[in-house]
Amino acid sequence: MLPSHPEPLVTAPAETALLSLLLTEGPLSRVDLARRTGLSATAITKAARPLIEDGYLHELPPQRTAPGAGRPVNPLAVTPDRQFFAGVKISDDTVYGVLCDLRATTRATARRPLAARDPEAVSALMADLVEELLDADPLHRARTRHLGIAVSGDVDRAAGRVRYSTRPDWQDVPLAEAAARATGLAVTVENDVKALTAAEHWFGEGTGTEDFALVCIGAGIGAGLVVNGRLLPGAYGVAGEVGHISVDPAGPRCACGSTGCVESIASTSAILDTVRRTTGRPDLDFPAVVELARSGDPAARDAFARAGRAIGTGIAALVNLFGPERVAVTGEGLDTYDLFGAHIQVAYTADAFRSAGRCRLTLRPLAWDDWARGAAVVGIQTLFG
Amino acid sequence: MLPSHPEPLVTAPAETALLSLLLTEGPLSRVDLARRTGLSATAITKAARPLIEDGYLHELPPQRTAPGAGRPVNPLAVTPDRQFFAGVKISDDTVYGVLCDLRATTRATARRPLAARDPEAVSALMADLVEELLDADPLHRARTRHLGIAVSGDVDRAAGRVRYSTRPDWQDVPLAEAAARATGLAVTVENDVKALTAAEHWFGEGTGTEDFALVCIGAGIGAGLVVNGRLLPGAYGVAGEVGHISVDPAGPRCACGSTGCVESIASTSAILDTVRRTTGRPDLDFPAVVELARSGDPAARDAFARAGRAIGTGIAALVNLFGPERVAVTGEGLDTYDLFGAHIQVAYTADAFRSAGRCRLTLRPLAWDDWARGAAVVGIQTLFG
Repeated sequence: MLPSHPEPLVTAPAETALLSLLLTEGPLSRVDLARRTGLSATAITKAARPLIEDGYLHELPPQRTAPGAGRPVNPLAVTPDRQFFAGVKISDDTVYGVLCDLRATTRATARRPLAARDPEAVSALMADLVEELLDADPLHRARTRHLGIAVSGDVDRAAGRVRYSTRPDWQDVPLAEAAARATGLAVTVENDVKALTAAEHWFGEGTGTEDFALVCIGAGIGAGLVVNGRLLPGAYGVAGEVGHISVDPAGPRCACGSTGCVESIASTSAILDTVRRTTGRPDLDFPAVVELARSGDPAARDAFARAGRAIGTGIAALVNLFGPERVAVTGEGLDTYDLFGAHIQVAYTADAFRSAGRCRLTLRPLAWDDWARGAAVVGIQTLFG
Repeated sequence: MLPSHPEPLVTAPAETALLSLLLTEGPLSRVDLARRTGLSATAITKAARPLIEDGYLHELPPQRTAPGAGRPVNPLAVTPDRQFFAGVKISDDTVYGVLCDLRATTRATARRPLAARDPEAVSALMADLVEELLDADPLHRARTRHLGIAVSGDVDRAAGRVRYSTRPDWQDVPLAEAAARATGLAVTVENDVKALTAAEHWFGEGTGTEDFALVCIGAGIGAGLVVNGRLLPGAYGVAGEVGHISVDPAGPRCACGSTGCVESIASTSAILDTVRRTTGRPDLDFPAVVELARSGDPAARDAFARAGRAIGTGIAALVNLFGPERVAVTGEGLDTYDLFGAHIQVAYTADAFRSAGRCRLTLRPLAWDDWARGAAVVGIQTLFG
């Protein structure tokens, strides 16, 4: 049996609070740590000691505060190089890899074209990719024990299985086991949107919030929802499906079987289908559609406008139902934000209910490597019991 | 300063876990309590002791288990009469009151027509109502310290203020203070749907779930959402607004300013407006519309069908985003469930995404007194720190 679930580093509530706060918002003085965690100064010192001894935390040199403000303080900080985390995103045609440090800073990247799709071949490819990442620095190999893998679709994280994915076309694949065998690392498999949400919540737009959503737009449309600081899993494994809210009973039939889903109007392929149909040009590809819209073609512009309105209405539904503090919008769909961004904002503002609309939408441009970084952050979170 | 925030009875995690489990699912054996809370037998005994001494819990006589199954066990149970809680719902034209015991069983009810709407007059009326409830049994007066008030609209529970309500027409009313002065009880004011959700989560359809939603249909359409066992407040005070999800861009203009909201299609007054318009009979009232629909009038039947589809689509959006374990549907709208129930179910089934649709919808008929009971349950929850 391979070590697919390493022992967590911290389980006690005080250590958990201290380490997670320092990871995401450190360095912080002991006074600030006590204030933010609600722990006593003694409890902070006690919780910090084993983490300092293990090399995860260190004390910074004393910081002089304002004259007369009392004795100097030694802030505590995470030691980023103490441990590294590999992360991989499997896309349609490429496997993207990153190596991150403890604070989710990317220290190395690599990628491979995806040829064969069977799990063993993909695992061998990931092992090769991980080797390249570990080779980038001698410290990497000594201090990397975990690989996170992000896949689109329905993932059973606890069991390490991909239940269903269209990219690649997998059903019930025991990916964690195959990848652990190939790489010798402990492996966690997670849905890609959930992994990215975890990364943004801890190390991005959502830092410091308890209630946060990340909405991804592009080939698919989905969201990760953080409530009370925890990612919503859904009692039956489904949550955050903002792409499958039905926003127009006269809309297109969606692949999910419903009608007028946000995704059926606003995904990349939905926009392409609409423009092909309305222009009578089935030869168009998506870049051509984008060019048409940018050149002012009314049919193409209208398809993007309608997509933007559907997305804005979907985000407003999310905000009206769960009232997050902040929503970040990301995904490869942002490449065409000039064509639908204003429509998203207008529909969101019109449909957000009363003070729920105070929730700010922020844009978060996305590189493919960021998906892999999300997978690495899932690894960082396995430090916690 | 009046005692508007009494000291909680329990604050320690073990006592909190024990008392809340016994309140909602007791009596339970110590073995079951240990298993369900994750506490040791010793911790259970230690947590139970002060609650037994205070009279909140008692031991039941030994229950013989199966022959040879070890020594007999003494299950622990809540003592329902130990404390009572008054609850009041303020509606358009009536104030409803109940007195509940610790397990939310209604022990007395009373009601008064609502004449004057100013907060002082309503508080005096509530005081009069509470007197009647306390007079019903000598124990009531001795053991009631808390009044919960349920009001529709935007309520700042922590501050005890009604920020905004249309029933009655209030803006920024310090209701808790006025009611505490009038009744001499500690007072909590809560939004009526949230209060009812708390009651259903602890003592109704949601018992034992961590993720639950209560959807109310009628004059307004709203929901209370419980995530990880806690009622969602919304970062900006708005959450659960399933009535203000926009489900049809060609739908009616909603009072909130948006278009095609569930409420603009499916509230009682929306259905009435539609039928008046489609039949050309502005004289109709809602009972007449119901009668028309029940007698088979196509226009009236169609208005209910459209309402049912909008509600079903709204609930599916909620389920696709949150993935609750169970959804209960309630409200005075259930009186006409024969007219739109099947349409709710069909739309919900069509629009629920994959396994999210395993979430069961249950119907929960609602009496006006149940709203007041919800307010009393808010009081029971103030026992917890």
